[in-house]
Amino acid sequence: MAGNTFGTLFKLTTFGESHGEAVGGIIDGCPAGIELDFNEIQKELDRRKPGQSKITTQRKESDIVQFLSGIFEGKTTGTPIGFSILNKDQKSKDYNHIKDAFRPSHADFTYQNKYGIRDYKGGGRSSARETVSRVVAGAIAKQILAKMGVTINGYVKAVGEIQTNLPIESLDFSNTEKTIIRCPDLKKAQEMIDYIDSIRKSGDTIGGIVGCVIKNMPIGLGEPVFDKLNAVLGGAMLSINAVKGFELGSGFEGTKLRGSQHNDLFEKTNNKIRTRQNNSGGVQGGISNGEPVYFNVAFKPVATIMQDQKSIDKNGNLIDIKGKGRHDPCVVPRAVPIVEAMAAITILDFYLRNKAITI
Amino acid sequence: MAGNTFGTLFKLTTFGESHGEAVGGIIDGCPAGIELDFNEIQKELDRRKPGQSKITTQRKESDIVQFLSGIFEGKTTGTPIGFSILNKDQKSKDYNHIKDAFRPSHADFTYQNKYGIRDYKGGGRSSARETVSRVVAGAIAKQILAKMGVTINGYVKAVGEIQTNLPIESLDFSNTEKTIIRCPDLKKAQEMIDYIDSIRKSGDTIGGIVGCVIKNMPIGLGEPVFDKLNAVLGGAMLSINAVKGFELGSGFEGTKLRGSQHNDLFEKTNNKIRTRQNNSGGVQGGISNGEPVYFNVAFKPVATIMQDQKSIDKNGNLIDIKGKGRHDPCVVPRAVPIVEAMAAITILDFYLRNKAITI
Amino acid sequence: MAGNTFGTLFKLTTFGESHGEAVGGIIDGCPAGIELDFNEIQKELDRRKPGQSKITTQRKESDIVQFLSGIFEGKTTGTPIGFSILNKDQKSKDYNHIKDAFRPSHADFTYQNKYGIRDYKGGGRSSARETVSRVVAGAIAKQILAKMGVTINGYVKAVGEIQTNLPIESLDFSNTEKTIIRCPDLKKAQEMIDYIDSIRKSGDTIGGIVGCVIKNMPIGLGEPVFDKLNAVLGGAMLSINAVKGFELGSGFEGTKLRGSQHNDLFEKTNNKIRTRQNNSGGVQGGISNGEPVYFNVAFKPVATIMQDQKSIDKNGNLIDIKGKGRHDPCVVPRAVPIVEAMAAITILDFYLRNKAITI
Amino acid sequence: MAGNTFGTLFKLTTFGESHGEAVGGIIDGCPAGIELDFNEIQKELDRRKPGQSKITTQRKESDIVQFLSGIFEGKTTGTPIGFSILNKDQKSKDYNHIKDAFRPSHADFTYQNKYGIRDYKGGGRSSARETVSRVVAGAIAKQILAKMGVTINGYVKAVGEIQTNLPIESLDFSNTEKTIIRCPDLKKAQEMIDYIDSIRKSGDTIGGIVGCVIKNMPIGLGEPVFDKLNAVLGGAMLSINAVKGFELGSGFEGTKLRGSQHNDLFEKTNNKIRTRQNNSGGVQGGISNGEPVYFNVAFKPVATIMQDQKSIDKNGNLIDIKGKGRHDPCVVPRAVPIVEAMAAITILDFYLRNKAITI
Repeated sequence: MAGNTFGTLFKLTTFGESHGEAVGGIIDGCPAGIELDFNEIQKELDRRKPGQSKITTQRKESDIVQFLSGIFEGKTTGTPIGFSILNKDQKSKDYNHIKDAFRPSHADFTYQNKYGIRDYKGGGRSSARETVSRVVAGAIAKQILAKMGVTINGYVKAVGEIQTNLPIESLDFSNTEKTIIRCPDLKKAQEMIDYIDSIRKSGDTIGGIVGCVIKNMPIGLGEPVFDKLNAVLGGAMLSINAVKGFELGSGFEGTKLRGSQHNDLFEKTNNKIRTRQNNSGGVQGGISNGEPVYFNVAFKPVATIMQDQKSIDKNGNLIDIKGKGRHDPCVVPRAVPIVEAMAAITILDFYLRNKAITI
Repeated sequence: MAGNTFGTLFKLTTFGESHGEAVGGIIDGCPAGIELDFNEIQKELDRRKPGQSKITTQRKESDIVQFLSGIFEGKTTGTPIGFSILNKDQKSKDYNHIKDAFRPSHADFTYQNKYGIRDYKGGGRSSARETVSRVVAGAIAKQILAKMGVTINGYVKAVGEIQTNLPIESLDFSNTEKTIIRCPDLKKAQEMIDYIDSIRKSGDTIGGIVGCVIKNMPIGLGEPVFDKLNAVLGGAMLSINAVKGFELGSGFEGTKLRGSQHNDLFEKTNNKIRTRQNNSGGVQGGISNGEPVYFNVAFKPVATIMQDQKSIDKNGNLIDIKGKGRHDPCVVPRAVPIVEAMAAITILDFYLRNKAITI
Repeated sequence: MAGNTFGTLFKLTTFGESHGEAVGGIIDGCPAGIELDFNEIQKELDRRKPGQSKITTQRKESDIVQFLSGIFEGKTTGTPIGFSILNKDQKSKDYNHIKDAFRPSHADFTYQNKYGIRDYKGGGRSSARETVSRVVAGAIAKQILAKMGVTINGYVKAVGEIQTNLPIESLDFSNTEKTIIRCPDLKKAQEMIDYIDSIRKSGDTIGGIVGCVIKNMPIGLGEPVFDKLNAVLGGAMLSINAVKGFELGSGFEGTKLRGSQHNDLFEKTNNKIRTRQNNSGGVQGGISNGEPVYFNVAFKPVATIMQDQKSIDKNGNLIDIKGKGRHDPCVVPRAVPIVEAMAAITILDFYLRNKAITI
Repeated sequence: MAGNTFGTLFKLTTFGESHGEAVGGIIDGCPAGIELDFNEIQKELDRRKPGQSKITTQRKESDIVQFLSGIFEGKTTGTPIGFSILNKDQKSKDYNHIKDAFRPSHADFTYQNKYGIRDYKGGGRSSARETVSRVVAGAIAKQILAKMGVTINGYVKAVGEIQTNLPIESLDFSNTEKTIIRCPDLKKAQEMIDYIDSIRKSGDTIGGIVGCVIKNMPIGLGEPVFDKLNAVLGGAMLSINAVKGFELGSGFEGTKLRGSQHNDLFEKTNNKIRTRQNNSGGVQGGISNGEPVYFNVAFKPVATIMQDQKSIDKNGNLIDIKGKGRHDPCVVPRAVPIVEAMAAITILDFYLRNKAITI
């Protein structure tokens, strides 16, 4: 219980079901005196919102955030920032047919068994709608980090088998928002879009990978031995709906390398100590070394498909789940801002924690 | 700061540097009245300890745990369990030559920059010696879980390119301890051993993957939305030294599948609701569904190699790092009990947290 | 930073300034499947609200709570309960004259110095209006505890020098709500009311003491050594606005006793082990022993008085603070439900924590 | 469960029973690069240790702390500081007669009922011996605060009815260690000593009050609304064995004052904003205002008396508890360093937390 808070000093607690009154949260520990750009916050919400293109769900959620506290004359006051986003396009009738159903690879079965009760409408608390609160907090964290020069760029790295193989340093993130898929490798982007479109037409869904690169990292972020930067960042990503894997730096491929190949040798360039290559992904011993932090996040295919499936209901009866409703054929384009948001919250929290190292 | 505690109700805090007086920890929140098998605890420490075979480091650490509190007449009392393991075979002289050096892909540079001071002997706090405390706590958690029937089996899944492709359900864990590599696929085990041996002879190191399977999981463990079972488990694994990746269930491969392939359909078998396949890895919506929880952990190649490397020292001077000392050519065989330990701590903590769901 | 959360398993996080959009909070970890009585919740809010009698402030706040999540068909779902109470009767113009002023014994000076910025309207975050969120969470906790038989009764014990000297066991709590002062000793109640009325007429304020008695306590609540029942309960009370002291059981008077007088001898009554007297206040070694938990909470006089006072402003200038506005001459009658609320949250949290003692 | 950690950034976790192997703890989050004075740490332990004078218990505990980690060449490294103090003079035979007994006003009954098992020797975990770990951590915190100019002075304010009435500002703390009672009012000190001596001779015990004054406080410490400085400080004090009450500033007496008397008017002196009087006890709105923080802590009489008492044992039988053993007739002289220690830990933790207010 009580697992709805993330962070230690910059702390987000969220609430809300997909079809309840509202979703929202409280950001506690936001530094004081920060002037916020509310348009930027809304822009992030728009990147996440459904209905933004032909390859996302056609549900319309307005996703207008209302701030309730913690901001005075446009600036943060250091007191908790409460916010909410009303649930508008709820269409609750859509869900009566699955009231007692355990949809395959959804959270119906586990919520019912854990809590003995659940809000079945639109997945209730297990809906990815919950991530809208993360995007709000992440947008604020991102603005604060931007003031220090830190940039966070998520992007679609793979859709099914289609993957960009451009090295991290060749990715041009000014391309990301040029396509609805958010892959900065524009050639691959078109392939991905076409592929998702064909998947959608077949009533199916497909998984994918979101990559992320954080540049201009301060040195020294991360708190060993349990709160290593990679550990908390990985936990943050794995808490996002549908995520099944996380790797940082050389990741799973790096396990195939020899130490002599994998080691990132130091060198001195322009009077700064840097590494020649960056298999470490900017983290050594759980602490940032100033090189870019980059990582991949694996998203399984969306569980709701437009095909009929057999299942079981609450009472143990065999049932048919009809393939209907409005859902994403592939979650990764909308997941990009969520990955960025969780990255921003994590990095800002570590930045604040690191201030306690000295008196 | 203050990142040396793991868990919320079953809580481990650790201390200790590789070459300080001792390593150890405090387990706070261990359930009361549990009779402990101290031989079993020692057995786990022996699985982790160096010098156990030709493919591990030849350092000799005795790793005898001394319990200081929290146990009365062989049983846990519910009060904190303090414990320590003395550092014996320290050979501190070995490290004077690297006093000021930043060894490639080690934590020397980041610790020095973060804290402004570091115990350079044997890596200090960043040494994997720290994991001995995790194994002590994990061994206790494992015993408690075993009383409920929960089993946790780690194993070596891959060394470099050599990987067992046996499906999870065909792995015979009674084979794991039969070889020094701890791969239950005995044919692959021999290949792996030979490969590590050749790597060792070339003065190099190699990465690998540790897999883990948890069976007889209680349904309902995991605390959405941030403390999902997979999120905390992933964070736990990523906090282990040298880990660069984590995937649960279908993981990164699952991103290539369609929803219609990936979905785990429910069925009723022997009056229990089960899933036909288990791409979910036993976790849906962040909560265990009773199916086996299985996951992979990626370990990079050990950074210390028996070859000379160029580097930089604290003062910015170019230096040569000599390849000497006693280190593992491949960390995965000794990592198996560490992965199991972190899994056990995580699962037991979630078990206790789940008790607060009802009054 | 990040000090706006109370509790570990039943966890309240609050937000909101006195004159912002709304105050509210998130309850994370509320047990699932609890049927809530919303009238009872509102009744508690009404006990706290301003304008309820001639001896409280004449400000009118409607204090209607809106639940945004975590409740489905009248029952808790185990997911976070988000709620908000709109700020209606804000009269923000009232506060422009104190924009830069540091009012004596208010939090203006400390907030300004700590955060470098503050919402000066009505005290902003430092206003006692914040406690409305505590009353909401407390009302829910109280209902859950009531199902176990636990009762929590706060009452006014003293106003200035006027104090009820009835022993705990003679207090008839059915009298508490019979008077606007909430003192169950009806003779003293009238004296207190008259006294506050005279204080009010003189444009002044007066302090007081709120007592509280918790009966039918489960044995075993409290988590030594730092989270002793009395320690957390005391911290809870001391976090309420204007509180300067806390004592449990024999408290400060008990320091004058000898051990032979103070010790609570055990006896067996109706096959239950009880203590003959209860100087311990129901807590021994930081853990409840089943006897009534009783304690006192000291409230200083309200800082806002209807008299002119000299002060300093943000720029260091000498200023006059005019005595105007609508404020309580004595805070204790309205503090009773707040004390009960914090007690209920504390006890329920310990109840849930205690479930983790065994597997 | 898991209540053995105090603090959020400067974090102390303790372990140990009175007659187990050792008591000790881990300090996680101690700032790096601090040169420690180990003699000063030992001096604090000596102030707490038993057997130091005729008015304390005649038990002899050597209380030599051994540091196990986190310190390198005399300086803190920012990694966890593990430490232990061996239990030497255990005389475990002394306790066999109370194996099953529930001693009046001790924690025997509550521990037995909570955990179902307990280490009965010398009170086990509930023994005040546990506070030795707090003194170690407090001594380190005190040294760090001293570098900023912050001074923390505890003293005996009252023994039974004998109380010093000197105002805070007239207390000369250079007198505190001049007498074995630690009351800086030397006239009262002698009265107190004589009184305790007479109490001791009658085989009884007596309660008392420890006061504490913290000077040169940084402005801005404390994290509303739940982690107010007074709330956390109060909780810290109430977590010490035998404490039944806490009051800050005007405390319980202040409830009798009018607002016009109680309010601390601001004035400008030497270009600093100060208050003319300090009923606030240096805390306004839960945040330090730079004035001295002063508070009182009420200690009940020690429960172990040298007189026979009736009681009940584990099996519900009536028993006689013999008055024997070696115990303090009054706990307050030895409690002074414990109060100071908890104050130091609390203030340092808030100092570090306050650093996260800005980026």
